[in-house]
Parts: sequence; structure tokens; C-alpha cells
Amino acid sequence: MSDWRSIPCIEKHKEFLENLIAILIDCTFESVSRENPVLRWREPGHLQDIINFNLQEGPRAQDSLLEIATKVFKYSVKTGHPYFMNQLFSGLDPYGLAGQWLTDVLNCSLYTYEVAPVLTLMESTVITKLLNMFYKEENGASIGDGLFCPGGSFANGTAINLARFWFRKRVQNNKTIPSTNLVLFTSEDAHYSVSKWGNVCDVEIILVKTDEYGRMDINDLKVNILEEQKKGNYPFCITATAGTTVLGAFDLLIEIADICQEFDMWLHVDAAWGGGLIFSKKHSVLLRGIQRADSILFNPHKLLAVPQQCSLLLTKHKNIFEEAHSKQAPYLFQKDKFYSRDLDVGDKYLQCGRRPDVLKFWFMWQAKGTSGFEKHVDHLMRFSTLFKEEVEKRDGFKLVTEPCFINVCFWFVPPSLRVQNTLYDYKKRLNEVAPKLKEKMTKRGSLMINYQPLHEKPNFFRFVIQNSGVDMQDILYIFDELENLGESM
Amino acid sequence: MSDWRSIPCIEKHKEFLENLIAILIDCTFESVSRENPVLRWREPGHLQDIINFNLQEGPRAQDSLLEIATKVFKYSVKTGHPYFMNQLFSGLDPYGLAGQWLTDVLNCSLYTYEVAPVLTLMESTVITKLLNMFYKEENGASIGDGLFCPGGSFANGTAINLARFWFRKRVQNNKTIPSTNLVLFTSEDAHYSVSKWGNVCDVEIILVKTDEYGRMDINDLKVNILEEQKKGNYPFCITATAGTTVLGAFDLLIEIADICQEFDMWLHVDAAWGGGLIFSKKHSVLLRGIQRADSILFNPHKLLAVPQQCSLLLTKHKNIFEEAHSKQAPYLFQKDKFYSRDLDVGDKYLQCGRRPDVLKFWFMWQAKGTSGFEKHVDHLMRFSTLFKEEVEKRDGFKLVTEPCFINVCFWFVPPSLRVQNTLYDYKKRLNEVAPKLKEKMTKRGSLMINYQPLHEKPNFFRFVIQNSGVDMQDILYIFDELENLGESM
Repeated sequence: MSDWRSIPCIEKHKEFLENLIAILIDCTFESVSRENPVLRWREPGHLQDIINFNLQEGPRAQDSLLEIATKVFKYSVKTGHPYFMNQLFSGLDPYGLAGQWLTDVLNCSLYTYEVAPVLTLMESTVITKLLNMFYKEENGASIGDGLFCPGGSFANGTAINLARFWFRKRVQNNKTIPSTNLVLFTSEDAHYSVSKWGNVCDVEIILVKTDEYGRMDINDLKVNILEEQKKGNYPFCITATAGTTVLGAFDLLIEIADICQEFDMWLHVDAAWGGGLIFSKKHSVLLRGIQRADSILFNPHKLLAVPQQCSLLLTKHKNIFEEAHSKQAPYLFQKDKFYSRDLDVGDKYLQCGRRPDVLKFWFMWQAKGTSGFEKHVDHLMRFSTLFKEEVEKRDGFKLVTEPCFINVCFWFVPPSLRVQNTLYDYKKRLNEVAPKLKEKMTKRGSLMINYQPLHEKPNFFRFVIQNSGVDMQDILYIFDELENLGESM
Repeated sequence: MSDWRSIPCIEKHKEFLENLIAILIDCTFESVSRENPVLRWREPGHLQDIINFNLQEGPRAQDSLLEIATKVFKYSVKTGHPYFMNQLFSGLDPYGLAGQWLTDVLNCSLYTYEVAPVLTLMESTVITKLLNMFYKEENGASIGDGLFCPGGSFANGTAINLARFWFRKRVQNNKTIPSTNLVLFTSEDAHYSVSKWGNVCDVEIILVKTDEYGRMDINDLKVNILEEQKKGNYPFCITATAGTTVLGAFDLLIEIADICQEFDMWLHVDAAWGGGLIFSKKHSVLLRGIQRADSILFNPHKLLAVPQQCSLLLTKHKNIFEEAHSKQAPYLFQKDKFYSRDLDVGDKYLQCGRRPDVLKFWFMWQAKGTSGFEKHVDHLMRFSTLFKEEVEKRDGFKLVTEPCFINVCFWFVPPSLRVQNTLYDYKKRLNEVAPKLKEKMTKRGSLMINYQPLHEKPNFFRFVIQNSGVDMQDILYIFDELENLGESM
């Protein structure tokens, strides 16, 4: 039977962990093999028959736990598989995985130097390096600060709170203006977390129109700002997006920064998805203007394929985290510590206990070097272009819009609709294609690729890659598989 | 050289992962061995000499990565060590660790059933079970809902947002009352995250006085509520604490629930630390009244020694997460999915991408059973009592207050102060003892135990355990070590 004590004993547990890890290493390679399905779809009822999820009164034998672990793996989606293109993350990086496993053995929480000396210095190194990379043109190495966040949504929320803090600090008479009179502008194609967290912060959110490429309409932005001012409200923040979720659009950062300057507003750039381009000499041009942002969200777990999850909020305002967040809890940040309190980063955070997300990223960076991430990003960009070209080449595939980044959005038009594209219900019928194909590929376990509608556009597929193990054969496979699944439609 | 591609290849990476894991398994057992120090203290400059944190342009050899991993482990604090009592988490549970490792191989994000079928059902099982345990007296199995959160602070913040949503929904005319006129009450001994997140939500926070045991003063609470009403403000929420951070106090939940009922306020119970008692038939009495809470925060990573991090927000209001948080992003929660959208839990969350924290907890629960967690909790409670009795027995040790839970707060009075306890600067000198001892034990690497001042009380130590591998020898060791370190003071 398993032990109830929360400490590993050599006799009881070493063999168990060794057996488990042997299984896990096999799983790791199995999960990325093209020979295996990307998922084994089961309805919830069926899955509950296969895995008994119930929590029992008594303990289980270690053998039975190994069996459970195997089943959990077997029926989980293989997000590292080359045919998994369903989200803005994929790939199972071996060094990233190693960093995660090491993080787990350390089982640490990150707030004081005394508890996390190595991880504290690691965070500081990574944050400084990224500040240099994102802000180099304007600020050099010495200013700014950063936070690791549990996901991009949280980081967007933190940025909204900072923007409000900054606004109120300058408008003096702190808090005399209710949050509901403060207005934040973002585009209708921005990530939905901006609206979610606008609600948490209780500020008003205006969704600005986008142009045909999915970029914020600068004119509409200006009109909206002036309108809100006329109403007596206070525009305080613009959230621009560098790499929108669906189309992969990049808002015009320079134009938006100019507006922020004109109206004295905080510029937050949600570069959760596009931020990884900073590693590419060739492609970082898409981020031009980002150094003017007051804050930048960047998710290494997206484009750089760092394991889940790794998300950073960077700012050019060096002390704003302390000013906006600090509460100086005396049980954690004692004033009479024997070492410098500057080493204790915890009070800058809105979290207290915090799983360290830095180690896997830092470890991957050690393994590959900056140049390795650059090769990775350039590879992804190249294969997106190849994918786009293939869309243009093939009958029955049609681009939704001209892509500039990884996202290639396209319709698959099944044979029956190709000849009938003047039908009165063409749009309605096209709209039904993607969900139907998605069901087929899911049940077959052959491919995972996302679809969605956008504004007036009927459902279309969105190709994305973050896995630089994907090659040209895989690209062609996707087309063949979609044709195959849709040939009778 | 390491590979830049984000996919493991059998030839290159299997050996690396196998070598790494062999090191990690050794580390696991080394880190909990009493033969080894709990930490190897190094000043930041020194540590930077030992580990080269810098991020290089080029890749590294795999051998060099193994060396780095070994150093990262060596100079990190051993939070699973029996002499680590510094925080409200400790222990390195072997099944929890196994669950983490498996989570890493899955490398998943949790929002839709199609991407995380197994984990979705696992979360639902654990949440339902916990709802049954916490709300059994009032609500039975079928009502309520829960969220996994990245830490207790985030969960407290989410609860504040829910309380405001609920208040506004009932007061109608949504949003006509500015957040700054909404008042939340919590005790001065409550966790500082309540204040931090009160700021994010932009509501007013009143800190209510505590009694000698650290519990919220019910009279002061009432006086404050009436005062705020008189000012024209709206009391909307009380956050009670079940297990305060320093003293381990339990607010009087029944009395506070009555007040919430009287004034029509949301009751949030921060049981981050004390919530694990629900597993103990003997000790769950400390949580009496908790079933009347509108929301409950519970951190299995604290008392239950689940690995970092695992935190839940439970509520008795079944649909409130959807109502308060949902944005129905069409790219993720498509309306024309081929399976039931009820299976997609993501839109209930304030996070979007989310590392699954359920698996390690569920896996430990499978291993130990409910009865295993009960034995664990009862063991911890028993050893706290033994620790307290030892404080009372020994010369030079003095209780700060009578404990009711795990926390035993005490002064170590060094020999020189024992005979001079009428000195005019006795309090000042006593205040200097704990920081000095803390420095000594840290540099020696012999023990990690936290100290803090509280209100007018000079610095004292706080004993806590979450590691049920701690035995009577360890308890005695702490006393001997403190005496040893302080004998010449």
C-alpha cells in the first residue's frame, strides 16, 4: 500500500519513482511520434468507465498507481505531437521538460531570497535580459522591471491595474475619480482577457474596430477617445496587441504610441503571442515601436515552446510594482533581516506563494542559447509561409486574409461547394464545414487544428505552429488529411 | 550540443533525460535526509560565481546542462527537509511529485474538454468531492462550483470580485455604486492579499481588530459596519480567516455568518491554511460554520503537503462563475461544437491558459485515500501539541499565545535575558534575538523556522509543520538547535 506520510523513504518510494519515470520517458517519445494518434477521443461517460476518477477512502497499491498514470497519459491529448495545432502552444521541448522536472524536485515558492536564492537570481537574470531585448532602443539595460505571471490573462489584468495606479498618481487626489469613469481602449480582436480583467478592475472597456487585417483602426480609436472625453470620462490606457489570437495581426504600435503620448495614456502591449519574435533579427520588425510601451506582456510558453506555463509582464517603470502592489507583510518581508530586502521580490507581486516558472525557460535558454531560440522562431515563420503558399496552390483552400505572422487562416471548401459558390446559402453551408471536419478529425485522432468564426466571416481554420519539430511532410499531411476528411462533403 | 528544435528525438534526448532523472531521483532522497543541511547559504555575489546565470548566444553541451542542474539543486533550499519549517508549505510527497512529473509530460492547458478530457473530469471529481465535504451540512452534493487558482492570493481576489458581482446583481442598477463606496471587512491578522486585491478591485478595505488569540473582534466588526453605513457606504463582504498566517487563529465563523445574514453581505472564508482540517473527523470542528460561507478558499498545497501549487476557490452559488466571468470567446468556446459546451470549463475562469494543478492532488488522493490525508492531518496536529508542550516544559521558551491549530508561536529567551526580565529595554532586546538566531541557523544550514513581530509583540518564532515525515526526534532537535545557537546570547 502507498504511504500516507508526506516524505519519500528510500525503501518504499525509490522503486516506485523509478518505475514511474521509466513509463514517463517512454510516454514522452510516444507522445510526439507520428505513428501514434494525436488523441484518443472518448465521450465523458466512456472515459469515466476507463478511468475510475472516484476518490476512495483507503489507499491504493503502488502498482495500481502506475496503471492509473499510464491510462491518464493514454487518454490525454498529445500536445507535443506534430499534428497538434489547436492552440497557441504546442511542442514538448526536452530541455523545457527537464527544467520542469527539476522545478518539481525543488518544490519551491518564490518570494524571498532565503527560500529561493538560486531561483531569485535566475528570475532577475532573465528579466534583465528581456528588458534589454524589448527596450534596447530607448532605455538600455538599467531601467524597468518584470514579473512572472500565471498566464497572459493575469498579466493583462496586472497591467490594467498598473495603468490605473499610474493615472491616479499623476492626476493627484488619488481615487477621487471612480474606476467606472476610467476608460481603456483595445481592439475587438484583442484577447478576451482584457475585458474580463477590465471588469475585475471595474474600469470601462471600449472595443475599437479592426481593419481587414485585424489591426486596430486608428481612426476609430481617436474618435472613441474624443467621444469619451466629451462624456466626461477619462481615457487612461490603450492595450495594443502584437499577434492577435485568431488572425495573428499586429496593431500599429508607433501610431498607437503617438496617441498615448498625445492623450497622456498608458500603453500596454499584449505581445503574449508575438513577443517571441524579439529573438529573430529577421522578423522582430513586426514588433517595431514596442519599446515605447509602458508595459509588455510576453508568453515564452507560446512562440518559444517553453512548457506550460511561462508568462512575463515587463515595464519600463522601474519602481511601479512596489509602489502599486507592496503591502510589506511583516511575517514575510521582515525589516530586520540579515540580508538586503531588495533580494526579496515577493512584495512586488499580486501573488504570494508562486510556483517558479523561470527555471524551465532559463534551462532551455542555457541549452539552446539565444541563437537557438532565433533558429526556432525563424523555422516557424518559414513553415508558416510554406503553409500559406500551399493554401494558395491547392484547390478548395482559400485564405481568409493575407497573413503577416504564424497564423494562417483559411477555409476548406469541400468539392460540393466549389462549383456552387453563388448559392444563396453558400456562407451558411461553408460555416458548417469546419465544425464537421473538426468532429471527424477529433474522432479519428488524426489532427487537431482550431476553427472559429470572426465578425461576419463564416467558420474557418487557423493554422499555427510553435513546434519546430514540424517539417514539410507534416505540412503536406495536414492538407491531405483535410482533403481526405472532406472529400465527400 | 543541445538541439534547438522543440521536440524530443529518441537518439539525442533519451539518454539526456535518463541521466537527468537519475540525478533528480538521487536529489529527491538527498533533499529530505537529516544528514544533509536544509540549505547552503551563499551571498548573491558568491552564488553568481558558483552558477553562471548568464544567458549565452550559443548552445551548451548536454553534459554541461547536467552539471548546471546539479548545482541548481545543491544551492536551492530543501523545502522537503524535516528541518524546513519556514513557510506554510513543506514536505516533498513522493506521489505528489509523481503527479507533477506526469503533468509535465502532458504539458497541457486546461480550458476545453477536447484538449484536456482526462484533466477536465479529474477537476470535476475533486471539486464535487470537496464541495460535499465543505458544504455537506447545508447543501448536499448537487450545488456549488469550484475553481483551481494559481495561489491563495489570486483566489481571495477572485472572491472579492464575485462578492461585488453578487452585490451589484441584487442591488440592481448594476454599477451605479462606485467600487470605492463598497466596503469589505477583514481582520488585521488576515492575509495581506485581501488588501492587495481589494486595491485591484478598487473597493474599500476595513481591517477589524483581533482579540488576544488573533480572532476577528466581533464587536469591532459590527461597530465598523454601522459606521460605514452611516457614512453612506455599502458593506458588501466579510472575509473571515480559518487559520491565520502567523497565529493560526480561526475567526468565529458562526457569529460572522450571522452578521453577514443580518447585513446581507457575502461571506468569504480564507481557509487557505486551515481548510485541510476538513479531512479530520477529530479536528474539523475548528471549521464549524464554514458551510455558511458563500465562498471558501482552500490550499491543498499547505496543510495537505500537495506540491506547489494547488489552490481552490469553492462557492455555494452554482452559476456565479459563468455569470461573473464569462466572455464566450468564439475562438475557444465555439457554439457549434460537436460535444456539450458544459464540458468546457475555461470560460468560468479569470485565467485563459492554465497549468493543471489538479493531477498531483488527485494522484496523491488515489495513493493515500481520504483516510491517508486524515492520518496526515491528525499527525500534524498531534506533533504541534507535542511541540507546544515542549515549549512549556523548557526553560527559556515562552508561548506567545495559547495555540488551537498547527502554529505554535514562541519566544526563545536567551540565558542573559532570563534573569533580567525586568530590564527597561527587555522588549527591545528580546526583539533582536530571533533575527540574530535566524541569521545563525541560516548560515549554518541547520534549521529554517520563521520569525516575525505582531502588533506590539516583539519578534517571535512560529513553529509550523505540513510534513508528516517529521517525528519526535525532529521536534527535540529544533529545541536543542535553538538552545545551542542562542546559548551565548
